[in-house]
Amino acid sequence: MKRLYLAGPDVFLPDADAVGRAKVDLCAQHGFKGLFPLDQQIDAVEEDLGRAIYRANLGLMKHSDAIIANLSPFRGPSADVGTAFELGWFAGRNLPIFAYSNDEREFAERTRFLLDLAPDAARDRQGLGIEPFGLADNLMLPGAVGAAGGVLVCHQSDGLEAMSAFKRCLDEVSAYFTRREQAKYNRRTT
Amino acid sequence: MKRLYLAGPDVFLPDADAVGRAKVDLCAQHGFKGLFPLDQQIDAVEEDLGRAIYRANLGLMKHSDAIIANLSPFRGPSADVGTAFELGWFAGRNLPIFAYSNDEREFAERTRFLLDLAPDAARDRQGLGIEPFGLADNLMLPGAVGAAGGVLVCHQSDGLEAMSAFKRCLDEVSAYFTRREQAKYNRRTT
Repeated sequence: MKRLYLAGPDVFLPDADAVGRAKVDLCAQHGFKGLFPLDQQIDAVEEDLGRAIYRANLGLMKHSDAIIANLSPFRGPSADVGTAFELGWFAGRNLPIFAYSNDEREFAERTRFLLDLAPDAARDRQGLGIEPFGLADNLMLPGAVGAAGGVLVCHQSDGLEAMSAFKRCLDEVSAYFTRREQAKYNRRTT
Repeated sequence: MKRLYLAGPDVFLPDADAVGRAKVDLCAQHGFKGLFPLDQQIDAVEEDLGRAIYRANLGLMKHSDAIIANLSPFRGPSADVGTAFELGWFAGRNLPIFAYSNDEREFAERTRFLLDLAPDAARDRQGLGIEPFGLADNLMLPGAVGAAGGVLVCHQSDGLEAMSAFKRCLDEVSAYFTRREQAKYNRRTT
């Protein structure tokens, strides 16, 4: 059974445990084992808790066959940086990357909206450039998903915890692993 | 000569080229070759430009021995997600990771300040948790720097482009590679 690392700012939700269980259940319905970062007993004194959680999350990542990253915007125009980090880690390992966002606006449009800029602004009020490439977030994130042969599903929904894009993402993961198995079978039989 | 990938939102500055040249010069003064993501001629039609830049950046990353990531906050309490992605990629490859921030506040303190929350708020107005671990950003970023044996230098300065923390970071990179060479020499001679 393939293991999917379930990255995302979902861990910051007030009902993170319930959201994690719901995602793991949906994975099971698709024949996958979902690994949600809260599924762990962390044993550490307070001052080391941050680093202990890092090590525990990395342990889950090392036992995963692919990532599904929730790239919905988090406290700004972009995804959560912890999630972006984890997506990068899977790219560094050449593992399959799938992602979704509950915000289907383009990155530039969302950035201009959140910063209250003109619809054609090329820079913000600090003079910092706005990426114009028609992608869902900073080009490194959709770039990595595409380079890994994965899919980034964007579907407008309310809140970080909406599951419609996640479910469509799981369908894509199923299709990906089915294709890969089929290709392996074809190589063996020809 | 060791090659350092110079990650950061510096590429969005109006004078990104000049900032990149200044960083590359500082690297050279420390005996390193700095690779700044704008050092590239990108040849692509407009609609593919985002993905072409992804591939070009990844090409530089694959030819780097270590990363220095500018984790100064970018349009919110956290670092730029492209930079977080790249840091994750180096972690996935087990390569040395160095980072700096021109904001020396703790992540929780900065988040509460930017979101105008009480100094002891555990959650924001959407109910999303605020990481309390006394680190500089989402725990995955300082966690990865520490796990890779690197250093995260935080030094309060004005703007993304201030170089004091970057310079201190370069000193740390020099010390790291000197120690590594020394350890290699000691293994050969004992």
